[in-house]
Amino acid sequence: MENNGIEQILWDELQTLVTNERMESFRIKFLDMHPYDQALFFIEQPEEIRLRIYTYLSPEETADIMEHIDLDDIKPLFTEMDPRFAAMVIAEMATDDAVDILNELEKDVVVSLLTIMNDKNADEIRELLHYEEKTAGSIMTTEFVAIYQSKPVKDTMKYLKAEAPEAETIYYLYVIDEDKHLVGVVSLRDLIVAEGDIQIADLMSENVLSVSVAKNQEEVAQMIQDYDFMALPVVDFQNHLLGIITVDDILDVMEEEASKDYSKLAGVSDMDRPKDSALISAKKRLPWLVILLFLGILTASLIGQFERALEQVAVLAIFIPLIAGMAGNTGTQALAVAVRGLTTGDYGKQGKMKLMAREAITGLINGIVCGALITAIVYFWQDDFFLGLLVGLSIMSTLIIATLAGALVPIIMDRLNIDPAVASGPFITTINDIISILIYFGLATGFMQYLI
Amino acid sequence: MENNGIEQILWDELQTLVTNERMESFRIKFLDMHPYDQALFFIEQPEEIRLRIYTYLSPEETADIMEHIDLDDIKPLFTEMDPRFAAMVIAEMATDDAVDILNELEKDVVVSLLTIMNDKNADEIRELLHYEEKTAGSIMTTEFVAIYQSKPVKDTMKYLKAEAPEAETIYYLYVIDEDKHLVGVVSLRDLIVAEGDIQIADLMSENVLSVSVAKNQEEVAQMIQDYDFMALPVVDFQNHLLGIITVDDILDVMEEEASKDYSKLAGVSDMDRPKDSALISAKKRLPWLVILLFLGILTASLIGQFERALEQVAVLAIFIPLIAGMAGNTGTQALAVAVRGLTTGDYGKQGKMKLMAREAITGLINGIVCGALITAIVYFWQDDFFLGLLVGLSIMSTLIIATLAGALVPIIMDRLNIDPAVASGPFITTINDIISILIYFGLATGFMQYLI
Repeated sequence: MENNGIEQILWDELQTLVTNERMESFRIKFLDMHPYDQALFFIEQPEEIRLRIYTYLSPEETADIMEHIDLDDIKPLFTEMDPRFAAMVIAEMATDDAVDILNELEKDVVVSLLTIMNDKNADEIRELLHYEEKTAGSIMTTEFVAIYQSKPVKDTMKYLKAEAPEAETIYYLYVIDEDKHLVGVVSLRDLIVAEGDIQIADLMSENVLSVSVAKNQEEVAQMIQDYDFMALPVVDFQNHLLGIITVDDILDVMEEEASKDYSKLAGVSDMDRPKDSALISAKKRLPWLVILLFLGILTASLIGQFERALEQVAVLAIFIPLIAGMAGNTGTQALAVAVRGLTTGDYGKQGKMKLMAREAITGLINGIVCGALITAIVYFWQDDFFLGLLVGLSIMSTLIIATLAGALVPIIMDRLNIDPAVASGPFITTINDIISILIYFGLATGFMQYLI
Repeated sequence: MENNGIEQILWDELQTLVTNERMESFRIKFLDMHPYDQALFFIEQPEEIRLRIYTYLSPEETADIMEHIDLDDIKPLFTEMDPRFAAMVIAEMATDDAVDILNELEKDVVVSLLTIMNDKNADEIRELLHYEEKTAGSIMTTEFVAIYQSKPVKDTMKYLKAEAPEAETIYYLYVIDEDKHLVGVVSLRDLIVAEGDIQIADLMSENVLSVSVAKNQEEVAQMIQDYDFMALPVVDFQNHLLGIITVDDILDVMEEEASKDYSKLAGVSDMDRPKDSALISAKKRLPWLVILLFLGILTASLIGQFERALEQVAVLAIFIPLIAGMAGNTGTQALAVAVRGLTTGDYGKQGKMKLMAREAITGLINGIVCGALITAIVYFWQDDFFLGLLVGLSIMSTLIIATLAGALVPIIMDRLNIDPAVASGPFITTINDIISILIYFGLATGFMQYLI
């Protein structure tokens, strides 16, 4: 049956049970749900009830819930828990999720949690904590099953049955030699259909792709998507197998990166969350607005240079927003296309020159069409051919230059090894505002004798 | 070893082998690569060489390549192939990929391909072709293994060994009753560690989530992401199991949806592709630019209403782009935040009222800060307190209203069951241009006696 989210009647039932401290009945109904739904219910409870629910659940059951709670909400939960219980919960989690959570907590809380934890778990987590954020190392898990190339299939299956409950995935098995070098891969599917006494070395594919522990997470995501992998092994520079990255981790990376690109285009440094207060929202957006305010003042002072022209021909002012707006729009279009192309790696080395050439022609075509259109409209509306020609020529030149600028900025950033997505929409819009006003008033000054 | 993409030396070697018609050596080197890399090489070849490569490969080997080629490039390939060979290639593909490709071809080509194909394959594909685009039905595959609840584990394992090569995934096995109703799920992991004579009914989890065949693909993607599923079963309205959706299909959906949202924010109806000509690019962007041109004329004619004020106080014109620009920027910020929140379902039912309230306060805070700042700057720059006050008050009121407008438009669209991502950046920017100019010149008219 279709079922996404918790039905109201079940929610109310759970609420009544936990309020009346009916532990046993609550556990049965609660644990019967998917951990994501458990998390949905749990996170809506007041602290008092949350503290009660911890006492109802084992560390393992609590860990399942915590793995499905948004990282932005996680900090108060691990602060309100008894530290011993918190350490046990973290020990029960997949190491990659545990590391994500510890990265959200205060440094001294992390140290004390790791001290309480047993040494083996704590060491595994400490090791992962060292990897730089947004690298393959920071998103990989160390809970994988590695098998030896020298063993036969039947021994490997026996080993697998013992290891399966601990591992993040057993559907792809990475094969190592005696020195833990990655040498191959076998799918569980192949293992199941193989004869028992075949050696793993004869069954495995030696053609195993892997990523370096320092590789950027966005490139890892692209690779998993291109090659349709379920999992990808992570190695150090000597090709020792360190961990694996599974496709579900990549879903989160893709959402994160898409959200980042989207925010930049809109000029929001960090996306607001539904629970943010207005003050936090304002704080996130104000820096952008203030920068743009100052750029706007620059634009204003530029127009100020042409105040005499404006005094002579006030009608010039009417078309300022139209011309600046068109420059901003066409620049944002070109920017978005270039950023998408560059971040998804669709452009090769020569591709960037081709892109610029295409944008130049695209700007020219759009410039001619829009320029001719506006010349005709202004001519009939204001009954002034030279004004029409001025606006039309301005739109045409503006569209060509703004389109090129929109594509050029991310390409230059990419060349300088800066993520082109940093080139934000409002920034390019303001640059193009300035360019368009210079063109418009420059042409107007030239046309002045025909306009007065 | 790290290895993403094909090394130049291997590429050159393949090129030489295929040019010299060294079929056997080419096959060995070529088929040793991952199908994604094979596709990279293949798509760069001229038609003449592609036709030669088809003759070197079996339909199955060709199908592997075709599954990794971008859908936008697929049409010429299936048009240049011999129709019989094309039909055999399609029959070898996973049904969901086959359907994606057929959706790209001309209707009469599809009909003739399906006629050549054997009946069983053709029927499976025909059935999937009926589902509406962007629904669960259109992205599911029908190649899955369903197991019966009444069978014991050992019989099921035997059945699995026979079925494994055909199925898209065998890592989650969906359990059906005699009437093919979906009744449970078992992971291969659980099956491997279970005793042989246990019945599937006793091993399976009855708590199986599924989606209806008509569900929107974006919601399916969100669900797989939230619940960390590797696969999700698709059922009809009577809960019969029809197919499965695997997580790798979801990666493509996520990329598609992210790209769509991003394009809309930039005012590009359909993202350009690297291979698009300038003419195609211009065609994709022109409709937006022309609409915005006409909206811009509306703005211009609005300012035209205030031409007398402009003639009296030419300095008023200086601040038009600043005020319109700030309105556009703050509106795009609010729009982006609201669209992200609404499409990821982060806001509940009451959440939208809360969002509007927060945006109002955010707009107020940003308005007061930016308004005070600009009042001071204009006062010192132009040595005119009233002009400063006019610009400051305009910025303040503009930011409040533009922020609200940015959030309100997507919320209204969502209420009307229109995808809020359709509310594009340029559209909201132009609306806010108009609002801001009305406010500015409205206030200027009121202040006029102090400005002259």
